Amino acid sequence: MPYFYLCTMDFSSKLLEKGVEALAGLPGIGKKTALRLALHLINEAPEKVSQFTTDIEQMRQKIQKCKICFNISDSSTCTICSDNRRQKNLVCVVEGIRDVLAIESTGQFKGLYHILEGVISPIDGIGPSDLTIEALVDRIQHTGINEIIMAISPTIEGDTTMFYISKKLNNLNVKVTSIARGVSFGGELQYADELTLGRSIASRTLYK
Amino acid sequence: MPYFYLCTMDFSSKLLEKGVEALAGLPGIGKKTALRLALHLINEAPEKVSQFTTDIEQMRQKIQKCKICFNISDSSTCTICSDNRRQKNLVCVVEGIRDVLAIESTGQFKGLYHILEGVISPIDGIGPSDLTIEALVDRIQHTGINEIIMAISPTIEGDTTMFYISKKLNNLNVKVTSIARGVSFGGELQYADELTLGRSIASRTLYK
Repeated sequence: MPYFYLCTMDFSSKLLEKGVEALAGLPGIGKKTALRLALHLINEAPEKVSQFTTDIEQMRQKIQKCKICFNISDSSTCTICSDNRRQKNLVCVVEGIRDVLAIESTGQFKGLYHILEGVISPIDGIGPSDLTIEALVDRIQHTGINEIIMAISPTIEGDTTMFYISKKLNNLNVKVTSIARGVSFGGELQYADELTLGRSIASRTLYK
Repeated sequence: MPYFYLCTMDFSSKLLEKGVEALAGLPGIGKKTALRLALHLINEAPEKVSQFTTDIEQMRQKIQKCKICFNISDSSTCTICSDNRRQKNLVCVVEGIRDVLAIESTGQFKGLYHILEGVISPIDGIGPSDLTIEALVDRIQHTGINEIIMAISPTIEGDTTMFYISKKLNNLNVKVTSIARGVSFGGELQYADELTLGRSIASRTLYK
């Protein structure tokens, strides 16, 4: 169905129209996909659709932010912060929840996290005060954290954020590191960009 | 995030996990997209998410099928069937609701519809009794319909369905037509498949 059909589409049902509009409000879901999803839901059992909407409603209304690290959580402290087996003096600073999921799935990190909830981006009107940087400083001052690993995207905004954080932590007794940048595993050298390849040579490691 | 991360993903939140699972149950939405949508919904205002779930819930619970043509409808008779300006003796037989939307958007058809709710497909276990063919026969017998236009996909299943319907309507006083097949507008001859091109020559029309 070409796109212009959908613009002028007469749904002959207000209920369907509202449902399609609701689904089309999701990111990356266009009107065509929204219609497909709506028709799928209409053909599902009513109980199944009720379960679907209840799960989403519950997720939105009951989910909390961990008061320590700002990770999403079912209670006021997330499962990572309340896990006694984790290293409490090592904190990995990330932009968002998805980064936590990615790092957790590596199984390589046993410390805690701190979610910034974004990066400094003047174009989008996001300044340092919109992030959880103050809470991070507070956390370092009041708990026994001795190393901060910054795992932030190496974009202009990410670099700005890292620079800002490192400045903020200058006077505090904490080691600030950043995750290694270099050519990825499985990546062929000829396809690596000049900046990455250049940096990976400058920060070469000893081959044992 | 590679796919295998998502399989073993530890969400650290049961609520998020359930929300992601609910969204991933939609057709064409994988776990990665479901997570993106769930995180979007978590960042939305609670009222907006409530509106979203209410719209979907209302759509599913309140939508009806038109008792005449099986189109989706907000009441027992759809807006098309209850529109007095439409030609009541001409019925277009289609597979699904999406076909109705596509034909309606052309503005070329002023008759009524009959939605089959699928096509005969033995592989998928769909026989004639699973479709609304009996209701169509009944409709022709009891209302003044004098032409049926079959607008069904020219697949094996579609052709079988058309053949079955035309057999069923053999003894009834109704004209049975099918929409024209041929090379589409804007389509170049060299790229048309042999079957379509062959048929379009066999069923050529007079060029005035």
